[in-house]
Amino acid sequence: MTAETLVLSVDAMGGDHAPESVMRGVALLAAEGRPVNFLLHGDEAQLRPYLDADPKLARVCEIAHTDKAVSMDAKPSQALRGGKNSSMWNALQGVKSGTAHVAISAGNTGALMAMSKLVLRMVPGVHRPALAASWPSPRGASIVLDVGANVEADAEQLVEFAIMGAAYSKAIHGKTDPSIGLLNIGSEELKGIESVRQAADMLKGNEFGLNYYGFVEGNDISMGTTDVVVTDGYTGNIALKTAEGTAKLVGGFVKEALTSSILSKLGAVLASAGLKQLKQRLDPGNVNGGVFLGLNGIVLKSHGGTDAEGFATTLRLAYSVGKSTFHQDVEASLSRFQASHPEAEEAVST
Amino acid sequence: MTAETLVLSVDAMGGDHAPESVMRGVALLAAEGRPVNFLLHGDEAQLRPYLDADPKLARVCEIAHTDKAVSMDAKPSQALRGGKNSSMWNALQGVKSGTAHVAISAGNTGALMAMSKLVLRMVPGVHRPALAASWPSPRGASIVLDVGANVEADAEQLVEFAIMGAAYSKAIHGKTDPSIGLLNIGSEELKGIESVRQAADMLKGNEFGLNYYGFVEGNDISMGTTDVVVTDGYTGNIALKTAEGTAKLVGGFVKEALTSSILSKLGAVLASAGLKQLKQRLDPGNVNGGVFLGLNGIVLKSHGGTDAEGFATTLRLAYSVGKSTFHQDVEASLSRFQASHPEAEEAVST
Repeated sequence: MTAETLVLSVDAMGGDHAPESVMRGVALLAAEGRPVNFLLHGDEAQLRPYLDADPKLARVCEIAHTDKAVSMDAKPSQALRGGKNSSMWNALQGVKSGTAHVAISAGNTGALMAMSKLVLRMVPGVHRPALAASWPSPRGASIVLDVGANVEADAEQLVEFAIMGAAYSKAIHGKTDPSIGLLNIGSEELKGIESVRQAADMLKGNEFGLNYYGFVEGNDISMGTTDVVVTDGYTGNIALKTAEGTAKLVGGFVKEALTSSILSKLGAVLASAGLKQLKQRLDPGNVNGGVFLGLNGIVLKSHGGTDAEGFATTLRLAYSVGKSTFHQDVEASLSRFQASHPEAEEAVST
Repeated sequence: MTAETLVLSVDAMGGDHAPESVMRGVALLAAEGRPVNFLLHGDEAQLRPYLDADPKLARVCEIAHTDKAVSMDAKPSQALRGGKNSSMWNALQGVKSGTAHVAISAGNTGALMAMSKLVLRMVPGVHRPALAASWPSPRGASIVLDVGANVEADAEQLVEFAIMGAAYSKAIHGKTDPSIGLLNIGSEELKGIESVRQAADMLKGNEFGLNYYGFVEGNDISMGTTDVVVTDGYTGNIALKTAEGTAKLVGGFVKEALTSSILSKLGAVLASAGLKQLKQRLDPGNVNGGVFLGLNGIVLKSHGGTDAEGFATTLRLAYSVGKSTFHQDVEASLSRFQASHPEAEEAVST
């Protein structure tokens, strides 16, 4: 492994269809020829056959055996108690020790979040990590965070999410001055919950070098009104899953509409190239993968129910993030925030 | 007006495109020949020309003149102070006085909610009204509430929403034993915010005669997993608008996909009947209209930005609700809740 080769530390046992979906996803990425190596954590007896069957894959993979795995329905506290040296734990250790650049898991979100905090620790000045998702829009894609790392967030945490989201948008979407929206109901000043209004007051001051847009509503996310949408993990998770459900519903309606008569079936055949493209844009696999922001190390979460394509999408994202300077950008922005809000740092150290 | 004729009390000045969209919406419904009359509140000089131009419409309409209207961006407190005898206020008074059966407005949501509470008062035992929306799903439609009448909700209010939502689902969708889901993140017991978990504990007891399903996630709404989805107004509003935005985004993708080449354009022409049907199902106008539940009288809210078709959809819903027995059902269910939770009633009277 040369200095230019990125190493991805993969929890090969995480996800509803692991290790099958994970190993096939790794194989898809390996076939693309990027300068990347994989450190695969999991049961060697189950993983080895994939490498034996595919010498090209074997060349870029290394198996780090463990027979422990975190179950998909374990509570975070259970995972922490019994999960040491599990495939998830070891994937994170790979990043902590410097052996790998990015950790990826499709396992239990709560367990991954708790373990990440324990193993990698938080960036100084960040209260809690956030899970950031890429969201398709007519303008390309936006970043939405938090989509479920936490349940609630106070005003200062929302500001931290804004800072981390901006740095991430710069790194991943190449935005030079990403605009930030705070998710709320109604765009009038008076509406919304206390924490969101307080965060708005802090962001309006514009002392953190952020391009603060103002409040945005649910429909603004898919419209791409801002490059970054900031919200608490409860609301963000519900918004994300609501959008997934809606896209699926609409996709079903499209299919129904195009097979409702012989003429429309024929039409669907003629339109099939365009429809294939549509399917790709709607496929959750193509927007699969959230990034935990705020940790001393990069951790990506793939959907628990992901298939090989979806996992490969997360790996591609891991590659982009690993190659970027976003980690340094986040730290620089956060130190500006701390300098202007010394009480925020204090709250962390206590 | 005979006993069988339903009277709809319409705020003709409410909405971004009022009175044009309102009057054309009323005309659409009038043309359908239901036994319904309209009491139109607003500026006679602006409304009269619509009736003069359409004798059939004039026959089922009565204008109650007022030159006052609540502006779309008024704060609820402003609306209450200055909004007496406005078109919105008078529309509600029409229901309170018994002249009309249902009040309908596309005006400012916050103002409508505040005025409804003041004019009509709450059903005894209900802390706060909720705004309920119909949500399309492969199984037909579900009821989601609250979608924005309140910002927050405690456990008891969520239980009240469940009771009101169940009664509404019976009345509008004809469900005999509607299933109730509590919107949350993750389906495990441990997750989610305190109020939602407490509400789950109360609903699990099943003492209110409700068919409680358990927690549901954002994607379950569009899947139609339960007949009723209960959440607080902040989350519900964001979920609703996120779904609207997503449906619009996907609709745009479909259009793009079907016009990306000559072949697919031809395909789109052949499939046009199916696609037209699709457009109807996705049209927010077809799911337009929320109902305020928990008031001594029926109030419907149409989208602020609604067009004539959307307003007509809300009027059709108003007709169904007005004809149903849901108001009596809600009161019966709520009195069961009060009997089992006397502290809930106390909290209201204080």
